[in-house]
Amino acid sequence: MIGSVSLVGAGPGDPELLTVKAVRRLEEADLVLYDALVDTDTLRYAVRARRFFVGKRAGRPAIRQDAINRLMIREARRGHKVVRLKCGDPFVFGRGGEEALALAAAGIPCEVVPGITSAIAAPLLAGIPVTHRGLASAFVVVSGHAESAYAPVLRSLTPGSATVVVLMGIANRAAIVNELCASGWAAQTPAAVLFGASHPGAEEWHGTLETLAAEDAVEESDLPGIIVVGAVAALAGILSTQDAVRHGEGGERRVASAK
Amino acid sequence: MIGSVSLVGAGPGDPELLTVKAVRRLEEADLVLYDALVDTDTLRYAVRARRFFVGKRAGRPAIRQDAINRLMIREARRGHKVVRLKCGDPFVFGRGGEEALALAAAGIPCEVVPGITSAIAAPLLAGIPVTHRGLASAFVVVSGHAESAYAPVLRSLTPGSATVVVLMGIANRAAIVNELCASGWAAQTPAAVLFGASHPGAEEWHGTLETLAAEDAVEESDLPGIIVVGAVAALAGILSTQDAVRHGEGGERRVASAK
Repeated sequence: MIGSVSLVGAGPGDPELLTVKAVRRLEEADLVLYDALVDTDTLRYAVRARRFFVGKRAGRPAIRQDAINRLMIREARRGHKVVRLKCGDPFVFGRGGEEALALAAAGIPCEVVPGITSAIAAPLLAGIPVTHRGLASAFVVVSGHAESAYAPVLRSLTPGSATVVVLMGIANRAAIVNELCASGWAAQTPAAVLFGASHPGAEEWHGTLETLAAEDAVEESDLPGIIVVGAVAALAGILSTQDAVRHGEGGERRVASAK
Repeated sequence: MIGSVSLVGAGPGDPELLTVKAVRRLEEADLVLYDALVDTDTLRYAVRARRFFVGKRAGRPAIRQDAINRLMIREARRGHKVVRLKCGDPFVFGRGGEEALALAAAGIPCEVVPGITSAIAAPLLAGIPVTHRGLASAFVVVSGHAESAYAPVLRSLTPGSATVVVLMGIANRAAIVNELCASGWAAQTPAAVLFGASHPGAEEWHGTLETLAAEDAVEESDLPGIIVVGAVAALAGILSTQDAVRHGEGGERRVASAK
């Protein structure tokens, strides 16, 4: 009998932010293929499964995407219940759609289990609502890994009309800030960078577009960083309850400095 | 001893899409204040809590926002563990930020537990990834309840540069389509409307911007509808696994018609 593949969102990191359905799929799984940043406590739910790491090590994929696809297809054809455990939500970046297409083309039964995306949860845990009456009635989530990905959106967006959330954009943060300022965003617009949200080593940086552009303002971290830009970022000083190390150069918006 | 308030995201509807943390907060709660669209199966987790409905009935709030805030503050001061259970994610529309500010101002310990937002999960369950390599490296989530909320974003966005997700926009769908087409979006851009994602009575409509604008194209539903616009919407025909009634006028993109 043919097996199946579940593309499961693991959420931002904290195993308590898995969904009930994700936990059940892990408990039932014969095989779990997991990404980098998936917490080891999360994998403990997979009590009877073999577990393969298929993420990136030191920025390089441990295994190529087509090899992951072939592995899922082969194991499902052997009758196994395969869980492809992906960081955050399976359909917010990270090639979940491509994996689902490969499985559909191979005739493998596939379901997708949504997960908490760090695009929304990282700001939330830092006390930043991506929407807030009077401040933001829209938000944009964009990949910052290449100019061709972020420039068409950020260049055109009416300044201040939406909260901007940039994933994978730490390395390009100066160019991203330039893009926004060139299209009319005020240099004093509140901004934050959130590293490792919901992970034990979470760090936050709070400031403005202007200070974000300064090359040494945001410290490098091994954990992925999410940039948030918009008036809502100023609420972090009031609403944050996350246990995180905070840095900031935003003058009176500076939240704390544990260093 | 003072109690606390947890603003908890209930996800899109299916109780299995609650997080582990949300379940735990419900189990521990003394009082649960819940919205419309929160499933009764979800409330079963609140084994020892009093439960108050504070959502909307027939479009009107059962109780005013300031009364909800006062109730949360009063009950927490009496030492109770209060769960404010909100549809989707607490910080994606729905006044979660305002509630958190009111609690902070009153000195009440408050945490926010993220939830699966239907802005991403409704498309996902219909087989639409909001991002997909080669099709969309960004997505926009916008409130469609008023022109002042959606126009600044939709008017400026480079056509096709992001997947557009509109919440609370069914009534204004013709105006929203006009806004997009006037700024250069092709009339043949794939579009979908997703009602009641993850609820038993889920329905989907699939078509294009042009057919979405036709007044009778989208049937009214009691369940909330989410509009998705962009090339990724065409993937629904391949990737959808949701058990939903489907309507469509998108020609060859028409997925199915159970009616």
